[in-house]
Amino acid sequence: MKKSEYENIESYMLECMKDSAHDKEHIYRILYMALGIAKYEKNVDPDILIAACLLHDIGREAQFRNPALNHAKVGGEQAYDFLVRNGWPDKRAWHVRECITTHRFRSDHLPESIEAKILFDADKLDATGTLGIARTLIYKGQVSEPLYSLDENGNVSDGENDTIPSFFQEYKFKLEKLYDKFFTRRGKQIAKERQASAILFYESMLKEVKSCYSCGQTELSGIFQGEG
Amino acid sequence: MKKSEYENIESYMLECMKDSAHDKEHIYRILYMALGIAKYEKNVDPDILIAACLLHDIGREAQFRNPALNHAKVGGEQAYDFLVRNGWPDKRAWHVRECITTHRFRSDHLPESIEAKILFDADKLDATGTLGIARTLIYKGQVSEPLYSLDENGNVSDGENDTIPSFFQEYKFKLEKLYDKFFTRRGKQIAKERQASAILFYESMLKEVKSCYSCGQTELSGIFQGEG
Repeated sequence: MKKSEYENIESYMLECMKDSAHDKEHIYRILYMALGIAKYEKNVDPDILIAACLLHDIGREAQFRNPALNHAKVGGEQAYDFLVRNGWPDKRAWHVRECITTHRFRSDHLPESIEAKILFDADKLDATGTLGIARTLIYKGQVSEPLYSLDENGNVSDGENDTIPSFFQEYKFKLEKLYDKFFTRRGKQIAKERQASAILFYESMLKEVKSCYSCGQTELSGIFQGEG
Repeated sequence: MKKSEYENIESYMLECMKDSAHDKEHIYRILYMALGIAKYEKNVDPDILIAACLLHDIGREAQFRNPALNHAKVGGEQAYDFLVRNGWPDKRAWHVRECITTHRFRSDHLPESIEAKILFDADKLDATGTLGIARTLIYKGQVSEPLYSLDENGNVSDGENDTIPSFFQEYKFKLEKLYDKFFTRRGKQIAKERQASAILFYESMLKEVKSCYSCGQTELSGIFQGEG
């Protein structure tokens, strides 16, 4: 790909994502991770991969305005139209569309081409390790969701059976379960390398919070009993 | 303290903080940590400590509306008025006020009483370890600040000399430097126990992000040169 063509696609991506500037670095991380994974695979078309990575989240704005929409599907359509308008042959623009449509985890529509599998893995890698922890916490701040919930006895829940959204709940429901959902060998390898730091974070935090509540609640009820 | 008195102060705190519900659990963590630290100190007045912990952040709403205000000073005044209205002797209400006024780190007004030192330490402990990391990331999400910045060459900055706000910048400027700023021996001990998990998180995340950019940028310029 010529640099000018890259910059043209990049400009379109930035224009589509102008209301979610904080997500921009996610796009570059996915592109860079994908190029890193591609080195370990055969017959990867770099232009398809680069276009698919740059444009994979351009449907997010539409989904944000209408949560019933699927950003992967909408984004794939937008990307196809943009590329055809910019002189890409129909078949290659359609290939990019397929990569984008299947980058979201949906059992009924799995990535098929090697470029689609690499995009899928690169995107999922951004939810592993400390990066996955950090992005989840940033998101919890944006939507005003708490770090953890208390159970009916006032004890800190580990998130396992929670129905109320929180960081611990998302860790247990989503982040913890990601590590074997990869299509490429290199993707799986990087995920495994990052796994320990995520587990350690969750376990340290659970320990910090639980020890604080268990000690304090005992002390407090002792004070009430002593003077009540 | 009688449970009914505790509940009266708690109700007032909840009323003052109704617009920042997500910070509520911070208050209980501080109260519980403070009671835990108090076990290691002599001559602690539990009623002063409990009232100061519950009310220490009630000035945040005022500071949020007018950033020129200092929530510790405003909150101390509000707490004093509330306690006197509820029958506390002037001297004891003033003691609570002093604890709240000095809980923020300001070199010109340091905590003096043992209750003030315990509140200060309990509050600072919530910025240590994984809890400090998590609370900072939640806050970055609320104010739409990024995880890291890129330097003029497009490389990921470790935050050390950053002027633009980001998670890495706050880690380097604030979180990393907290661990010897404690007044009580128990506070310092807990901080040291938590320190390793915070360092590990920062270092893991920096490694993940840096490796992603350095690999991807090299690959990308190779592609441009090959086809440019």
